[in-house]
Amino acid sequence: MDLFDNVSPLDYRYYGRSKSFEKLKEYFSENSRIKYFCLAELALVKALARRNICTEKTVKEVGEAIQKVTAEEVYAEEDRIKHDIRALANCIRSKVSEESKPFIHFGATSYDIVDTANALRFKKASLELVVPKLLELEKTLIELALREKQTLQIGRTHGQHAEPLTFGFAIASIASRLAGRIKQIQKNSEGLVGKFSGAVGAYNATSLLVEDPLKLEEEILEELGLNASISSTQIVEAEPLTDLMHSLTSCFGVLANLADDLRHLQRSEISEVAESFGKEQVGSSTMPHKRNPINFENVKSFWKHFMPRMTSVYLDQVSEHQRDLTNSASQRFLPELFVALYLSAERLNEACKKLVVDKERMLENFGKNKDFIIAEPLYILLAFHKHPNAHEFVKQLTLKAQVEKKPFTKVVQEEPEMQEYLKKFSKEQKEIIANPEKYLGKAVEKTEKICEHWKKELAL
Amino acid sequence: MDLFDNVSPLDYRYYGRSKSFEKLKEYFSENSRIKYFCLAELALVKALARRNICTEKTVKEVGEAIQKVTAEEVYAEEDRIKHDIRALANCIRSKVSEESKPFIHFGATSYDIVDTANALRFKKASLELVVPKLLELEKTLIELALREKQTLQIGRTHGQHAEPLTFGFAIASIASRLAGRIKQIQKNSEGLVGKFSGAVGAYNATSLLVEDPLKLEEEILEELGLNASISSTQIVEAEPLTDLMHSLTSCFGVLANLADDLRHLQRSEISEVAESFGKEQVGSSTMPHKRNPINFENVKSFWKHFMPRMTSVYLDQVSEHQRDLTNSASQRFLPELFVALYLSAERLNEACKKLVVDKERMLENFGKNKDFIIAEPLYILLAFHKHPNAHEFVKQLTLKAQVEKKPFTKVVQEEPEMQEYLKKFSKEQKEIIANPEKYLGKAVEKTEKICEHWKKELAL
Amino acid sequence: MDLFDNVSPLDYRYYGRSKSFEKLKEYFSENSRIKYFCLAELALVKALARRNICTEKTVKEVGEAIQKVTAEEVYAEEDRIKHDIRALANCIRSKVSEESKPFIHFGATSYDIVDTANALRFKKASLELVVPKLLELEKTLIELALREKQTLQIGRTHGQHAEPLTFGFAIASIASRLAGRIKQIQKNSEGLVGKFSGAVGAYNATSLLVEDPLKLEEEILEELGLNASISSTQIVEAEPLTDLMHSLTSCFGVLANLADDLRHLQRSEISEVAESFGKEQVGSSTMPHKRNPINFENVKSFWKHFMPRMTSVYLDQVSEHQRDLTNSASQRFLPELFVALYLSAERLNEACKKLVVDKERMLENFGKNKDFIIAEPLYILLAFHKHPNAHEFVKQLTLKAQVEKKPFTKVVQEEPEMQEYLKKFSKEQKEIIANPEKYLGKAVEKTEKICEHWKKELAL
Amino acid sequence: MDLFDNVSPLDYRYYGRSKSFEKLKEYFSENSRIKYFCLAELALVKALARRNICTEKTVKEVGEAIQKVTAEEVYAEEDRIKHDIRALANCIRSKVSEESKPFIHFGATSYDIVDTANALRFKKASLELVVPKLLELEKTLIELALREKQTLQIGRTHGQHAEPLTFGFAIASIASRLAGRIKQIQKNSEGLVGKFSGAVGAYNATSLLVEDPLKLEEEILEELGLNASISSTQIVEAEPLTDLMHSLTSCFGVLANLADDLRHLQRSEISEVAESFGKEQVGSSTMPHKRNPINFENVKSFWKHFMPRMTSVYLDQVSEHQRDLTNSASQRFLPELFVALYLSAERLNEACKKLVVDKERMLENFGKNKDFIIAEPLYILLAFHKHPNAHEFVKQLTLKAQVEKKPFTKVVQEEPEMQEYLKKFSKEQKEIIANPEKYLGKAVEKTEKICEHWKKELAL
Repeated sequence: MDLFDNVSPLDYRYYGRSKSFEKLKEYFSENSRIKYFCLAELALVKALARRNICTEKTVKEVGEAIQKVTAEEVYAEEDRIKHDIRALANCIRSKVSEESKPFIHFGATSYDIVDTANALRFKKASLELVVPKLLELEKTLIELALREKQTLQIGRTHGQHAEPLTFGFAIASIASRLAGRIKQIQKNSEGLVGKFSGAVGAYNATSLLVEDPLKLEEEILEELGLNASISSTQIVEAEPLTDLMHSLTSCFGVLANLADDLRHLQRSEISEVAESFGKEQVGSSTMPHKRNPINFENVKSFWKHFMPRMTSVYLDQVSEHQRDLTNSASQRFLPELFVALYLSAERLNEACKKLVVDKERMLENFGKNKDFIIAEPLYILLAFHKHPNAHEFVKQLTLKAQVEKKPFTKVVQEEPEMQEYLKKFSKEQKEIIANPEKYLGKAVEKTEKICEHWKKELAL
Repeated sequence: MDLFDNVSPLDYRYYGRSKSFEKLKEYFSENSRIKYFCLAELALVKALARRNICTEKTVKEVGEAIQKVTAEEVYAEEDRIKHDIRALANCIRSKVSEESKPFIHFGATSYDIVDTANALRFKKASLELVVPKLLELEKTLIELALREKQTLQIGRTHGQHAEPLTFGFAIASIASRLAGRIKQIQKNSEGLVGKFSGAVGAYNATSLLVEDPLKLEEEILEELGLNASISSTQIVEAEPLTDLMHSLTSCFGVLANLADDLRHLQRSEISEVAESFGKEQVGSSTMPHKRNPINFENVKSFWKHFMPRMTSVYLDQVSEHQRDLTNSASQRFLPELFVALYLSAERLNEACKKLVVDKERMLENFGKNKDFIIAEPLYILLAFHKHPNAHEFVKQLTLKAQVEKKPFTKVVQEEPEMQEYLKKFSKEQKEIIANPEKYLGKAVEKTEKICEHWKKELAL
Repeated sequence: MDLFDNVSPLDYRYYGRSKSFEKLKEYFSENSRIKYFCLAELALVKALARRNICTEKTVKEVGEAIQKVTAEEVYAEEDRIKHDIRALANCIRSKVSEESKPFIHFGATSYDIVDTANALRFKKASLELVVPKLLELEKTLIELALREKQTLQIGRTHGQHAEPLTFGFAIASIASRLAGRIKQIQKNSEGLVGKFSGAVGAYNATSLLVEDPLKLEEEILEELGLNASISSTQIVEAEPLTDLMHSLTSCFGVLANLADDLRHLQRSEISEVAESFGKEQVGSSTMPHKRNPINFENVKSFWKHFMPRMTSVYLDQVSEHQRDLTNSASQRFLPELFVALYLSAERLNEACKKLVVDKERMLENFGKNKDFIIAEPLYILLAFHKHPNAHEFVKQLTLKAQVEKKPFTKVVQEEPEMQEYLKKFSKEQKEIIANPEKYLGKAVEKTEKICEHWKKELAL
Repeated sequence: MDLFDNVSPLDYRYYGRSKSFEKLKEYFSENSRIKYFCLAELALVKALARRNICTEKTVKEVGEAIQKVTAEEVYAEEDRIKHDIRALANCIRSKVSEESKPFIHFGATSYDIVDTANALRFKKASLELVVPKLLELEKTLIELALREKQTLQIGRTHGQHAEPLTFGFAIASIASRLAGRIKQIQKNSEGLVGKFSGAVGAYNATSLLVEDPLKLEEEILEELGLNASISSTQIVEAEPLTDLMHSLTSCFGVLANLADDLRHLQRSEISEVAESFGKEQVGSSTMPHKRNPINFENVKSFWKHFMPRMTSVYLDQVSEHQRDLTNSASQRFLPELFVALYLSAERLNEACKKLVVDKERMLENFGKNKDFIIAEPLYILLAFHKHPNAHEFVKQLTLKAQVEKKPFTKVVQEEPEMQEYLKKFSKEQKEIIANPEKYLGKAVEKTEKICEHWKKELAL
């Protein structure tokens, strides 16, 4: 098929043309999905052979057969018999000796294979692909935070200038949240479980074959490095995968927040950061001078598309009795979220690595309301020195400064009521009142502390 | 690219391998997206030529050039300059004479092209593809309703047997809802609008070129059969497309309801309908006797995946100032909903055409609680004949029947308090009390009325 | 109950303490819900009396009885019998003569009353309360747009300065979208329908009483000014109400966009608008100088909470067979959206009426990148005068200006290649190149046109 | 306020009239919210006193003052100054001596109080209220599972009869999923963190007061039994609360699945279970005989309303820079989810305690397709005995039975190809082929194992 005949933008534009395509398709393409099914079928015969139900010859044959199975032939067989997993079994069967044929998919129901293979696939994809990419971004953010830990920036709440901090501190806040999500993705991907309990979860079929079907289930899953579900029906209980999807979705939320913050810091009036811009790059088809934050916008846009898909995951928790099939098609879409998160992390990592930070502009912006920043420390210090009504008193002074259009510092110095308190202020306290940029609290130390904590926790 | 290297199940499984692929890709593939962009660029030069700003030669050259533009080259150019629409303009420019070059994308901002082309594409896709397919399903349902209008079935509320109706009536209810959605899709696709108002919507650029840029906008859009937005910024206001997506999403809800109803009617204990089953078809990889309602389950599953995407559409209503780009990637996914709805309608249409209806089983199920069905008409008739407390009285009789394990009809006939009322009952009223299957109300006539109404409205 | 023992913030904070509480509770409280049920029961006896099935005396009695019915007694009766509508019927019955008793709820199923009463209630609430409040906001926005139609502002796309427009034009864009939503709410609230077709929609019960139960249904609904559903089951088809909820939800999206835009324009670095601030108002519990955009933030926050509830509405489209009851509790929450939208419109209206617009700051911000704004008209004019590669040429000049840190206008004037083209420019064209604030396109005229259009359409 | 003037159904119907109202309001009412704010203010002065910044007298005064603070006066003060937390501080201040006044809210920003108090409140509510109620339900389910562990029931997949299990096994599957969610709620509620890092998270204010503001933060939170956020801005990072909301939401999904399963098992045609029905209870306002699964329907309906609210929680992850206020109103709605989950668990617990289980009907339903159940074990056993194509062979036999309308067992016995295999079957294997009810796998043992596992894990 022509790439551009696809309908999904992931396929024709983002994943299909990404430089990570070769890596991603090993976990997320339909080819990989079938490959993992084959691994589950192989694990079954391995476990059977360990118990001498089938021979090592069968293991060898199946191992060779699954190398040759192609998605194309499985789909062709499915077209004929209208059942995807039976089709796969037929394709493997056709490649082994008569003696081995009966042991293909032996005692298994489709979802013994599907749920087990998906648990393996999503676990490996998370640990081998998604987490490492998120760790790259984490590393970049920590480096950025440490590099800019002293860079003065005005803190903003409600879009309004609030109190001072450093740009490194602001980045560390996001880095910390990302780090927490990475840990959770690790944990939840390791919590995925497989099953081999048959058509309704009661081990009906495998009880015919062995005395201890729960033990057999464990052995099969052990071949794949997976634990068994505590309690499956035809399918593994929905929650382990629901938890992983939640981890990915909420991690996406952190990326969206990072993207949004940088996007706003790039606003023309703020201009504290900028995406690096290629020489041939066009910002607008009509405005030749435009420099748009396209990478940050793209990540936000991906999040807007993918986050609501969590609702489908929650809907899939409900499956009638020992299961209905209404989670089948919907679950086929799950790999898209992994891919979208991976690509967004990659994009942000590259943008943040080359992020242009304009320290002078940060200082300039800081200066704009500098005068008023001291309102908070002034109120605190007045209260500290026992002013009975410090917050209201300072608020009135700020209003006075605005009404009289005088510098707030001047109003403060001239205010008679202030005099007795000013006397009580220590030298350091007076300095902060005079130099708001010193009112930095523990921004620098906290940045270091956060970064050290996560470097250790994540072994970065 | 290998089809099975795709990540989207639409691409590798549903759309990409569907028998409707050739038709669908004309509207929904990335190739088609670029084709529609080209049509918008052509409309621009046509309108310019009508005003002698450029010549007919340019129109001819552009008309020929866009035949040759391929997605591949546009993407290659975009890779170089990082701007998709400027890339397209460059590709067209490279195929026309020096004289024509300046008029390509002349005075346009990217979204003059993108939003206009998408309005045209989604409108045509709706009217030429989605609506006709939905009408096929509607026709099938109406035929089924009329064919089964006399087929007695027990009405079910809360999963409990309630009062009699006919299977045709039940189908007509769904058909009526579908018909209403079809009308709304038609209306809302015709409500899509284009724009040619420039980078912030104030006609800054085109005001340089002509006296009456609003008129020029109208002329360009007229070439494409579209109306102009009443008020655009860089983009068309979000609401017309939001309305269309709502129509599609809520239409999907009706299909999901149909699928769910039929799925439940196919439950082993109910078995009133069945999907026709292919001879080679396998129901379960392990239970050779299974006959699963896979088509109905698939439609429900699609709906579970696609319905929540409406949240992204609502999120995209908010775009900062004259727009931010965070709706760009997310809107690229919109065609997927059209495709999913189309395929679901196609699937349901085929399943319903071959639906096996087991009238005997319907009668048998009806019979199971037949005795109690007369509770409602009995209470109504008692009230009609002035019983002061009919509902409570009949409820006590039903409890009595259950406690004494006697037929309800018998309890009724033996009850002393009943006697004076039974005397007042007309012959017809007595007949209904004795034959619950006659308590059908206007099920047959209403079925006919509904079907006639929509056949006329939809010109079926 | 103590107001502050409530759990819903609507009750204890927003609706319950709002100045519109008295008006809102007439449509949205539980008391009002029961009042509307009573109106539906009254319409039933009125229609029965018209046909002489019951007497005018019964109508009179019921009319008086429903004045006396209280929510409290209905709930007490429901506690006893565990059925809300039968409880209501019992309460009315207890207040009329023996003769009238049988005609209360005669032939009706619960949802004949519930769906009919809700259609009436939501229709009236929309037309009498929500739409008028939205029209107040619309009027305020139109007045603001017209007042500020000449106020120069820089247009912003992607958070970047783009091309000039006026603040009035920006407001008119939102006003136009809001106006479109108001029209749709009007239309969709008028599209709500009632039903009187009994327990499964087949008129089983009413067919016992009259020859023409569909006509009777029409007559009952006519008493309430409602149309009958084309095709109901136990319930009215979900779509008319789904459409209204979509209208309200997407209208909320427009309010959120307005709130977001104003919120960002109030950012410290932009400061083009401000919420008016009360004298006693505190901006921050610790920063006495803060002036936060709390009203705009509140509207955005409400939207974030209420918009996703649309998913529940879509879920409620699916109801098994002639209905299951899983839409009952969920639909009880629907009035909350009306209330939230009303309160948000009220809040925005008040904030916009007192909006502080800082024209000087707008001019100052405009000036910041003024120099580059001419890049677009320059490129357009060069193309107009047949420059073969105008976009690329101008882009290179902008880069040159940045690299050489010279004013862009200067670079343009000095560039040798420019000279031959500059000669061809008309006087007006030269003027725009020199005075970017004149590059306003049709911002003023379009503002007027949009406002006139909607004032007429909405009879403002 | 009149209870029935409320707009929220939680307030006027579910929570406000529930028998658990007194307990619930201690955690979820607005009164309780303010009570917890007070506790955070108290913790602050306690920590200050430990460091001798204020005196024990102040601690005592504040301790007494907060007993007297009422929501009413806080709201009245907020009406005056338009800031909720400053209003609270003023109310406390007005109740203490001049000496103590400065230490109220000393060095705190509003969200030091709000986020800390909410963490405490939601943690305690989870551990003291929600989890215990869920454990009651868990206990009921485990008892039901163990009681019915031998009760034969047909397993159902896709709504079709599949393989045998026991009703106890089916209940154990749900009980196991619920248990897992309870564990997660415990863990995630204990993961909630507080903060005391000031207006932008950099400890600007508290750095004025003490050398080690991070230590002070720890000390304050220790008073409340909370840990400090690793990295806060003006607010605690969104993820700990997001995780808890996910746990609650996905727990709700398990309840919805239980409700749905029982609802379907109560369908007229299946009738394997029933909700116990009160003597005075009315099933339908018009059908006196109806017995609807109203409790199960209610839980499903609650879930349909509350589950999509998770989208708002994900939206609130994004907060601009050191925070914007657009999560303020939306977070006020969070307690509603706790309440809804609690009430649903309570409802299910009561319904399940009194659940009527019809074992005879289960046996009868099992018998309906009993004949075909042996298809699976037959195919497994044939494969076991080396039939090269067992699945296809058995599938053909099932078709033959259907076409020839003969019992499947008979077809099997008569089939010539079967004979050589039948000879190889063991006695036990033959028995299963003859008695499908013995084809139970490990249903009984697994039920016991699951129940024992969770009883131990949850200390039930």
